[in-house]
Amino acid sequence: MKVSDFLDKVRQQKPLVHHLTNWVTIYDCANIVKVFGASPVMAHAPEEAAEMAGLAGALVLNIGTLTTDFVEAMKIAAAAANKKGIPVVLDVCGAGATKFRDQKINEILETVNIDIIKGNASEVARVAGRDVRTRGVDAEHVDADLAEVAQGLAQSRSSTAVITGKCDIVAGGGRIFKVRNGTEMMSHVVGTGCMAASVIGTFAAAAPGDLSSAAAAALCCYEVAAEIAAAGADGPGTFKERLFDAVFCLDSETVEEKKKIEE
Amino acid sequence: MKVSDFLDKVRQQKPLVHHLTNWVTIYDCANIVKVFGASPVMAHAPEEAAEMAGLAGALVLNIGTLTTDFVEAMKIAAAAANKKGIPVVLDVCGAGATKFRDQKINEILETVNIDIIKGNASEVARVAGRDVRTRGVDAEHVDADLAEVAQGLAQSRSSTAVITGKCDIVAGGGRIFKVRNGTEMMSHVVGTGCMAASVIGTFAAAAPGDLSSAAAAALCCYEVAAEIAAAGADGPGTFKERLFDAVFCLDSETVEEKKKIEE
Amino acid sequence: MKVSDFLDKVRQQKPLVHHLTNWVTIYDCANIVKVFGASPVMAHAPEEAAEMAGLAGALVLNIGTLTTDFVEAMKIAAAAANKKGIPVVLDVCGAGATKFRDQKINEILETVNIDIIKGNASEVARVAGRDVRTRGVDAEHVDADLAEVAQGLAQSRSSTAVITGKCDIVAGGGRIFKVRNGTEMMSHVVGTGCMAASVIGTFAAAAPGDLSSAAAAALCCYEVAAEIAAAGADGPGTFKERLFDAVFCLDSETVEEKKKIEE
Repeated sequence: MKVSDFLDKVRQQKPLVHHLTNWVTIYDCANIVKVFGASPVMAHAPEEAAEMAGLAGALVLNIGTLTTDFVEAMKIAAAAANKKGIPVVLDVCGAGATKFRDQKINEILETVNIDIIKGNASEVARVAGRDVRTRGVDAEHVDADLAEVAQGLAQSRSSTAVITGKCDIVAGGGRIFKVRNGTEMMSHVVGTGCMAASVIGTFAAAAPGDLSSAAAAALCCYEVAAEIAAAGADGPGTFKERLFDAVFCLDSETVEEKKKIEE
Repeated sequence: MKVSDFLDKVRQQKPLVHHLTNWVTIYDCANIVKVFGASPVMAHAPEEAAEMAGLAGALVLNIGTLTTDFVEAMKIAAAAANKKGIPVVLDVCGAGATKFRDQKINEILETVNIDIIKGNASEVARVAGRDVRTRGVDAEHVDADLAEVAQGLAQSRSSTAVITGKCDIVAGGGRIFKVRNGTEMMSHVVGTGCMAASVIGTFAAAAPGDLSSAAAAALCCYEVAAEIAAAGADGPGTFKERLFDAVFCLDSETVEEKKKIEE
Repeated sequence: MKVSDFLDKVRQQKPLVHHLTNWVTIYDCANIVKVFGASPVMAHAPEEAAEMAGLAGALVLNIGTLTTDFVEAMKIAAAAANKKGIPVVLDVCGAGATKFRDQKINEILETVNIDIIKGNASEVARVAGRDVRTRGVDAEHVDADLAEVAQGLAQSRSSTAVITGKCDIVAGGGRIFKVRNGTEMMSHVVGTGCMAASVIGTFAAAAPGDLSSAAAAALCCYEVAAEIAAAGADGPGTFKERLFDAVFCLDSETVEEKKKIEE
């Protein structure tokens, strides 16, 4: 797969990516979209969530700091996105940590169409119906074949399923991708998981006809930038700032040279 | 205009700047006030918004992630600020993107007195009644003489109007300033626009008798610091951290030497 | 006191630290916990606050951007934490600034058990019943013996009282600690106070049987890292990113060598 073609599309189209996301990493989510050359917008009032989604090229939902009202606004935005036919990403942040989260995720999945379901191993396994528990928002070990979990979820929900980790798995449309880029440093700083969902949304907006490829390309580009950022960082603080620099400066040649992606 | 006199006033008076702002860039808004040597406070509960405004030297409102309740709290805080006679800045973030935003901006402008209306070209043009649309929160090209737009709005609303961009325009009290400082890098990172409103509020608090001069001086100092920060930055991530450093270290001589401001 | 033993415990146990905190510094609070090697989670929905607290090793409350509903969620989380027997930290951010804050702090202290009360000099003095006023969220000079204020509050509330400042004071269980680490740069950037409360919560989770020692060790480690970070920083922006690096890289030898702690 020519990953850099997807990067080029993002930079040419500069899609507007609408978010209803969590309050911890909301800045990072906006900024990662911006440094990729696209345009983030965050608007959660129920009175405008639908209209804003109607302006956008993709919608990213993240339940990290969900409330009942916030989930209602998510449904309004997602219904508008579905009607317009733009991709909707759901980051199932913290799935399996509390009954409330599981219930609200289920409610969203039953009410609107989610095109890409994204989480870490224990989160996605939980959404796929496995008996696992997430400790807060950090991944737990899952005793299962993750490719199988992703493929099962993709099929049962007619969506693309993304499991992030040392080896990312993207399953959808009968295809499966594995991305082995990235750096351990990503696990030592808050926000890298949430940003991954925003990047997936950005690439999905630019290539809505091929969501599993778009999601895999998104993770590959983002993680190649992370590798570059980590190389000169003294720790997680400078790493994160350098990640924004590296994404901004990322070129096609570097992506093609460093990509570790297989279908 | 001796721009550095305004900077000196800020550092001597260390005004308290109360904010009801958006959740994406709230940290940046607080921190930019802090590194200028002043004191930020964010308090949006309707029960305390008025009392907090009563302690402050200026109030900054930003509708980036507005809700109906949040706008009600803004009105309470602004009414208290009006009563105390301190300047109120409104960042009309996303004006023209949705009907809800336009309606709420109008509601605020009709209910309380806004001393400084600030936005990018398409946002301010929209508030001035022009038929333009903003795509999310990023500026669109406006086919109009921006100085005329700003002056018209300043007159019709009896306030100071600020349009930020490559050349910033500040119109108010029958005067007009143009500030040509800044760097393209500011447009590649989230938060520079919101921070501009907070800096304007900080300078307005220190020179409440001369709001158009204060706003122009604020933008000039902030953007001179941005030029310094961009000079050694590897991209938007390190640029933003260096911007906080550059503001903190900014001295009067540098400001006077680098200022590009005309009345 | 062997401060590094507490650091080792944090890194070995990797406690989950649940927060209901303010929206300005929420990212910093999460990230400082993460770079210490522990696991932050932020969940404020009343429907899940109790269940999440039940998974955690400590609960950190911060009223910086309180609302009535948010304080209700805090009480639910704290009641669950009390029931489970895990330490609860309350950062009395902005105490004395408005009547609403004073009233809500009092409400919390009367409704649930707070194990560690933390603030700057004027905030804690106010909670201790002194007639002082806080200007926004920044410390005011307090004309009183702070050790006495802390000891009095610790006794009257049967808790540990922490006053941060140039010399931090920790009083509890009949003991009193003074920590003289840290750097002036901490006062020039937003978030260092809020992060201190999160670090205290993290150490308290790892050593729940000895809260005053844990709080003193937490401040000592955090401030030794701040000293290291400040040494090579060009200003408050780069300082803060370097602080995350320095915490991540902090080793026992450095802590023992640089600690300035006395009982």
